[in-house]
Amino acid sequence: MKHKLKEILDKNRCFIEAGNLPTYIPELSKANKNALGIYIVDLNGEEYGEGDYEYPFTIQSISKVITLMLALEDRGAEEIFKFVGMEPTGDSFNSMMKLEIVRPSRPFNPMINAGAIAVTSLINGSPEEKFQRILTLFKKITNNDSIKVNHEVYLSEKKTGDRNRAMAYFMRDVGVLQGDVEDNLDVYFRQCSLEVTCRDIAKIGAFLANDGVLLQTGERLIEAKNAKIAKTFMVTCGMYNASGEFAIEVGIPAKSGVGGGIMALVPGKMGIGVLGPALDDKGNSSAGVQILSDLSNLFNLSIF
Amino acid sequence: MKHKLKEILDKNRCFIEAGNLPTYIPELSKANKNALGIYIVDLNGEEYGEGDYEYPFTIQSISKVITLMLALEDRGAEEIFKFVGMEPTGDSFNSMMKLEIVRPSRPFNPMINAGAIAVTSLINGSPEEKFQRILTLFKKITNNDSIKVNHEVYLSEKKTGDRNRAMAYFMRDVGVLQGDVEDNLDVYFRQCSLEVTCRDIAKIGAFLANDGVLLQTGERLIEAKNAKIAKTFMVTCGMYNASGEFAIEVGIPAKSGVGGGIMALVPGKMGIGVLGPALDDKGNSSAGVQILSDLSNLFNLSIF
Amino acid sequence: MKHKLKEILDKNRCFIEAGNLPTYIPELSKANKNALGIYIVDLNGEEYGEGDYEYPFTIQSISKVITLMLALEDRGAEEIFKFVGMEPTGDSFNSMMKLEIVRPSRPFNPMINAGAIAVTSLINGSPEEKFQRILTLFKKITNNDSIKVNHEVYLSEKKTGDRNRAMAYFMRDVGVLQGDVEDNLDVYFRQCSLEVTCRDIAKIGAFLANDGVLLQTGERLIEAKNAKIAKTFMVTCGMYNASGEFAIEVGIPAKSGVGGGIMALVPGKMGIGVLGPALDDKGNSSAGVQILSDLSNLFNLSIF
Amino acid sequence: MKHKLKEILDKNRCFIEAGNLPTYIPELSKANKNALGIYIVDLNGEEYGEGDYEYPFTIQSISKVITLMLALEDRGAEEIFKFVGMEPTGDSFNSMMKLEIVRPSRPFNPMINAGAIAVTSLINGSPEEKFQRILTLFKKITNNDSIKVNHEVYLSEKKTGDRNRAMAYFMRDVGVLQGDVEDNLDVYFRQCSLEVTCRDIAKIGAFLANDGVLLQTGERLIEAKNAKIAKTFMVTCGMYNASGEFAIEVGIPAKSGVGGGIMALVPGKMGIGVLGPALDDKGNSSAGVQILSDLSNLFNLSIF
Repeated sequence: MKHKLKEILDKNRCFIEAGNLPTYIPELSKANKNALGIYIVDLNGEEYGEGDYEYPFTIQSISKVITLMLALEDRGAEEIFKFVGMEPTGDSFNSMMKLEIVRPSRPFNPMINAGAIAVTSLINGSPEEKFQRILTLFKKITNNDSIKVNHEVYLSEKKTGDRNRAMAYFMRDVGVLQGDVEDNLDVYFRQCSLEVTCRDIAKIGAFLANDGVLLQTGERLIEAKNAKIAKTFMVTCGMYNASGEFAIEVGIPAKSGVGGGIMALVPGKMGIGVLGPALDDKGNSSAGVQILSDLSNLFNLSIF
Repeated sequence: MKHKLKEILDKNRCFIEAGNLPTYIPELSKANKNALGIYIVDLNGEEYGEGDYEYPFTIQSISKVITLMLALEDRGAEEIFKFVGMEPTGDSFNSMMKLEIVRPSRPFNPMINAGAIAVTSLINGSPEEKFQRILTLFKKITNNDSIKVNHEVYLSEKKTGDRNRAMAYFMRDVGVLQGDVEDNLDVYFRQCSLEVTCRDIAKIGAFLANDGVLLQTGERLIEAKNAKIAKTFMVTCGMYNASGEFAIEVGIPAKSGVGGGIMALVPGKMGIGVLGPALDDKGNSSAGVQILSDLSNLFNLSIF
Repeated sequence: MKHKLKEILDKNRCFIEAGNLPTYIPELSKANKNALGIYIVDLNGEEYGEGDYEYPFTIQSISKVITLMLALEDRGAEEIFKFVGMEPTGDSFNSMMKLEIVRPSRPFNPMINAGAIAVTSLINGSPEEKFQRILTLFKKITNNDSIKVNHEVYLSEKKTGDRNRAMAYFMRDVGVLQGDVEDNLDVYFRQCSLEVTCRDIAKIGAFLANDGVLLQTGERLIEAKNAKIAKTFMVTCGMYNASGEFAIEVGIPAKSGVGGGIMALVPGKMGIGVLGPALDDKGNSSAGVQILSDLSNLFNLSIF
Repeated sequence: MKHKLKEILDKNRCFIEAGNLPTYIPELSKANKNALGIYIVDLNGEEYGEGDYEYPFTIQSISKVITLMLALEDRGAEEIFKFVGMEPTGDSFNSMMKLEIVRPSRPFNPMINAGAIAVTSLINGSPEEKFQRILTLFKKITNNDSIKVNHEVYLSEKKTGDRNRAMAYFMRDVGVLQGDVEDNLDVYFRQCSLEVTCRDIAKIGAFLANDGVLLQTGERLIEAKNAKIAKTFMVTCGMYNASGEFAIEVGIPAKSGVGGGIMALVPGKMGIGVLGPALDDKGNSSAGVQILSDLSNLFNLSIF
């Protein structure tokens, strides 16, 4: 396996050139564009890493999967889906158009920014408690107590987060978001700025592949039905507005982040973490998508 | 199993009332609103039917799955996806907005009307040959030589198909559609007007669940990779702009039609045909969706 | 003339019923729905009032005309129109859609909320200085030193102004708006909350009809070319997305506000102030529009 | 005057380079890009021409003003505005987006293509009678019996008019357009292909400036109120989605066509015809707009 992973990494290194580091969050543009890594956590206990799988990066949108599960646990699906929909949009992750033209006005799904901000606001607790609960869940799932916020990225996001502010105020105007907007966004910016490695996100993938039960202890942290909801959204909306293409080319639940990470999984089998900071024009790791495509084809992983 | 099917049908009969017969194709409004049927074709050879599984209805959008596979066989995926995208839209099945505002202008996927019209136009042959090839494939897959066009519905669609004409001319303007528009639409209207039963569409589901190989003969009609593409689109876009919700609530590949049918499948296991002509506001059989939801939960069918 | 004005008022009182007090700014819903007044300031010095022309109301969007002129004086047309366009939108006054889908992203004109917020931000001075300069200009034009902010309305706007906040943050994200968003909005909310009467806004109309020269003193406050720009926008965009209809039915420059006022004018002839707090579904005074239509037809005022 | 016209023409010849001949109607790309002409018909009987004022070009969208007046005469304003609105759109002349997202679905105004097609369909008579009545009105207004269709352009429009077909079918689907779509479009394509000169369109302008009364005979062809409606639309929507800017920069009623002509007028004073086939990116004659701007500033023609 490890040998195959190296082959796949080497073969797809060329796709780094087709991508670019994001500039709209200035701090992200300082990443090493050439970092490339993969880590696999098999549900039967094996783990394999190759390349820069210990290179730290911020989790960004991958965190949306975790906060969705936490909100579902706190409030139940029925309550959550009063505030956020279940449909892919076909629009970019920061689009606000459907908020304006579709009635009732609410974010179409929890994987676009507007939906994720709304979902985080629905987690129980004060803003500080929300964040601590998110962090605690991250640490448990990844079995990594040292996970923490990258402060430079957090400040950079906070400073340049006006598009997210626009969405949040729009949502408060239509009753989707409650409470102080900056407080809500602060939690969101912090969750996005958590620093992880391929290994960490592979663990998250394995946890989902295992239906919400920790591999190492057998402890159930998330109800199976909520883990299933999260996995379904990863398929229909996990790769921004390239989710449909990814479903066809790769065919496994996956969630990407503009930090260059992709957290993926094969139900009942394995979690996968991939890193490649150069992004394609949809916001997904340009080499990362190709690596997962090769992996899926080689081992016949598609769920379809 | 048969006993369970009857229970599920009876339990969900109440959802008929929440739906309505479509009126925009006048002939469809003459259907029996209370018809309700299900048919299952198991890949190990068993078949089960309950309710009005022999009640005839027109296949409508379910045909889009068949024509997509035929076009993929004729032209290859690379060529087809030059003309039609792979992404869900979040818009209604007859929306034209994204054709206007997204560049390059092309239908977002083969399951919305614009995309399906484009795909049918890409099938090899003259208009008459296209249709005969579609019909032949239908007959083979369903093992039903008597399948034919419902002429009244066909004429009704042709007469009231101005929205489809609008899409087709728009697509010809931007170079997505070639040839005579009425010729292209005529094939499309005929494919939509094919009259089938739950049993027929359950056979189609089973054929897809079997990756493109005929159960009865073992003959491969469609390449496995093309069957997989079709199944993937059924998950991401098969239930109009309720596909995301259906993926969460039911979790199996499915394609609905405004004739009231839903063709569904469990990969490697079974094909399912459901009929309930009363539609919800997204255009899906109101009782049919509930029946599939119960079936999925009872037998744990979700692929996620 | 006074006799005619009374007739017109009485005839159109019935249209009050077709309108509603706005509720999205709660304080505005406390206005007297049945107030109805008109005031005319003739350029040859005559003034006529009828009905509740001394009933106080907040100026709201009518202020956009004044701030546009002030910004044009401060920065010049070339600079202003780098940040805001000149085209009507066809969308509602608080729509953000074109900000997202049209490139370059900037508000389409200074009469929609987004455009007016951008324009106010371009006025010279600190936020406090901006407001004081706006207030001073108002006092001069209306020859009314007692004009001041209605504090309850101001607080109500500030509290419920999330849609405006959404626009402002969006505009800062795309570089249209500089500086602190709340500071910018505070000036905007204050300018909208200035309390006036029909007489005050008739004076503004007369000032514009006189090309930017004070009637009482002959002093030029605004360059003729800037007054002309303001009058042109009043015709193309002054009555929200009913401006086209108003141009046909009435045919004079006019700007309405959700406080129920309409400031109108006949170039070279007169300024007109109308009040009727009940609004139609576009946000214009339901009776006020009819009063201006009758007045225009009776005295043949259309500029077309 | 004639001397001034020559000066203005020469000064603005440089703007030809900034424009391009339209290619979407191939026959139009064969025009002489460097043709530049102006013709003025004064209401007191004087006429002045300069440059290529006898160069023939097709009238294109300028015809929309004539057909609107004819439809208003035939059906009355109340009836016409049941099918077409009065508002500028902010979108391009061939946009269909608002037909889809605004309710009730109808073209926003008679100057965009969809609105003009609907208006032509409302003219009394069979398709052939409609066209003959349009042609007769053109001949009378221009006092030019030799006006006729440019057959090559007509065929070119008919062949490449798929975007117009898309609009027409969409409008028939929503009940705005009745009758056979190709019949309706044929009249529209013919009206657009009428070949005229600057002198002809200056006569149309003068006719409108004279409120619907023929200068040469004093005969009223169009009611004053209908001429006024036409002039108003020329201001709010006459220059495509640059109408707002034109109102500010030039300030007179004008209607442009992609044949390079602009028909303009000063109410009560004169009609103006300008030609310059090279178009800016909004579809207006690049040099023509500048010529009218200079003319307006020099003689202080703005109505605002």
